[in-house]
Amino acid sequence: MNLALRLAAQGLYTTQPNPRVGCVIVRDHQIVGQGAHLKAGEPHAEVFALRQAGALTEGADVYVTLEPCSHFGKTPPCVQAVIAAKPKRVIIAMQDPNPLVAGRGVAALRAQGIEVVVGLLEQEAAALNAGFISRMTRGLPYVRSKIAASLDGRTALSNGKSQWITGAAARQDVQHWRAQSCVILTGIGTVLADDPSMTVRLTADMRQPVRVIVDSQLRLPVGSKILEPSMLANSPVVVAYATDTQQRAAALEAKGAELVHIANQTQQVDLPQLLQVLAQRGVNEVLVEAGQGLNGALLHAGLIDEFIFYYAPKLMGSAAHGMFAMPEFTTMQQVPDLQVLDVRQVGTDIRVRAKPIARAI
Amino acid sequence: MNLALRLAAQGLYTTQPNPRVGCVIVRDHQIVGQGAHLKAGEPHAEVFALRQAGALTEGADVYVTLEPCSHFGKTPPCVQAVIAAKPKRVIIAMQDPNPLVAGRGVAALRAQGIEVVVGLLEQEAAALNAGFISRMTRGLPYVRSKIAASLDGRTALSNGKSQWITGAAARQDVQHWRAQSCVILTGIGTVLADDPSMTVRLTADMRQPVRVIVDSQLRLPVGSKILEPSMLANSPVVVAYATDTQQRAAALEAKGAELVHIANQTQQVDLPQLLQVLAQRGVNEVLVEAGQGLNGALLHAGLIDEFIFYYAPKLMGSAAHGMFAMPEFTTMQQVPDLQVLDVRQVGTDIRVRAKPIARAI
Repeated sequence: MNLALRLAAQGLYTTQPNPRVGCVIVRDHQIVGQGAHLKAGEPHAEVFALRQAGALTEGADVYVTLEPCSHFGKTPPCVQAVIAAKPKRVIIAMQDPNPLVAGRGVAALRAQGIEVVVGLLEQEAAALNAGFISRMTRGLPYVRSKIAASLDGRTALSNGKSQWITGAAARQDVQHWRAQSCVILTGIGTVLADDPSMTVRLTADMRQPVRVIVDSQLRLPVGSKILEPSMLANSPVVVAYATDTQQRAAALEAKGAELVHIANQTQQVDLPQLLQVLAQRGVNEVLVEAGQGLNGALLHAGLIDEFIFYYAPKLMGSAAHGMFAMPEFTTMQQVPDLQVLDVRQVGTDIRVRAKPIARAI
Repeated sequence: MNLALRLAAQGLYTTQPNPRVGCVIVRDHQIVGQGAHLKAGEPHAEVFALRQAGALTEGADVYVTLEPCSHFGKTPPCVQAVIAAKPKRVIIAMQDPNPLVAGRGVAALRAQGIEVVVGLLEQEAAALNAGFISRMTRGLPYVRSKIAASLDGRTALSNGKSQWITGAAARQDVQHWRAQSCVILTGIGTVLADDPSMTVRLTADMRQPVRVIVDSQLRLPVGSKILEPSMLANSPVVVAYATDTQQRAAALEAKGAELVHIANQTQQVDLPQLLQVLAQRGVNEVLVEAGQGLNGALLHAGLIDEFIFYYAPKLMGSAAHGMFAMPEFTTMQQVPDLQVLDVRQVGTDIRVRAKPIARAI
């Protein structure tokens, strides 16, 4: 199953909107087949592994990181292919998180007399597909927020300057988080201050995430680097807005941006609704790369699932911008608590991954 | 020499204002004597080791972490005792940092035909006595600033509340930094907000650092916990002030505080001068435990030699107090750069030690 998980991880940057899945077929202590799902529309991991093993699957053990699908999507259901190959046992790391089909694959296998074990390395399998699981179970993408700050928690000078706080190694590390995301979410403040392109620059021909800008009053300049025409084909830009008093929508659409109107009662972009819309479009993982405004609003609304902080060995001082603009707290009990997942040095910077702790209140 | 350094470290909490020194005497690959300096006024490390080795020192190797002293202080010069014992070799980790006597001990040994080696594990020896070395070479104590903050770099809520940001393990860790310091330096803001006692609570009968409060306008309430009479005998309180418009000096002195008037031209306590005064009084190491006001002023004046940050897994938001109040920077080049010395998890918190990088500008 460890090998199957490593195979699944090969699809980290490419399977979207599908989950990352790996499969290994073992007969008489020998690996006779292995496969990974690499791209939506292409065969699933089980199919590759079954093809390789051929007739040797009969009586063998099939390890698969996710319950074989039981429904027709872009490809025929894998569970039928598995049944046809007559394995002795199927060992599944985790059930299909889609509540509509969860357990059906297992049931179909058992109905044919195939022994099924579910739950081996389940946590590791779930971690590979946090976004897919979140979308299936909550109707929301899994939201990571990446923030580069100084050791005193500052993300930009008071005049907006922030390039570069962190070093080259940290910026390279960020590319990997971008590459596995379906969407990069940023705020108009960041676009106006930094004019970033927010694309993946690992290799030339990578799948690019969709870039989504929260821009409540539709202030995005038509000449922004993020609207650079050569990038738009691979990496569409979606602008979520609440009001368009300056009538800029048409010009932005003409540049190739997609405009989505999602307003709440205070004429701001309704963030929970925006995330729901993204999930409905098949978005599994969102990487937030924004300033304290959007990050504060997302944190306050409980919409961030994971924090990736990069701290550079600098002290920018209290006049500089912070990380999360939020309403004032009056007691320490109101302060959001996190759980630290991982601390490491990346180049000369320090990376801290953390997740929110659900509160009883 | 490693053993000698470990012996020296036994005096970490107790030798002040003297340096921590260890000594090991080796003859025919056997340790025949060892000693550590533990308390000012008591014998030095060499004396303890020579006593233990007795006549066996003749022809032996003497390892000592600091050049044996060559002058009469509270005790006779060690170098004479070493010479009298007739060792073959003396191996010294580092020269005496006092520029007035540096090298005299070595010269005295060599003049008697004793072989002398200097520089073995010199860095480690210097790290043990950063404060003593700083005082001897710069006329300033070695200043550590300890700051407990949330992961977004906030030290207190906007209403001043800050108890407790970090967990029990981090607070216990802080006790060790306090215990090895000669002075705990805090600001009146912290005293007014938290009413701390700033004492060492590791064991009941420990040497207590002197507590120094920077209180430019002399606002310290007579009823502050820091002036609690039972603590004052072991841990004196010094209040550094610039103006006393409310005529509070006499009442504070009656409570047992020592008042020191050190004003600069803007009627603030002159911080470089305060640190010089402390060094003149034999203060080797200062631990700053203060808010963003005093920390920002010390950082801006280049007076902090080491930072010890404890980050708690919380996000307090940008309305909360920061770590360093400093004048606004307009370019990233102006921002103070640090070098990270050490990153570790302490309980559920993250501890980062760092030091400033000297700038070419």
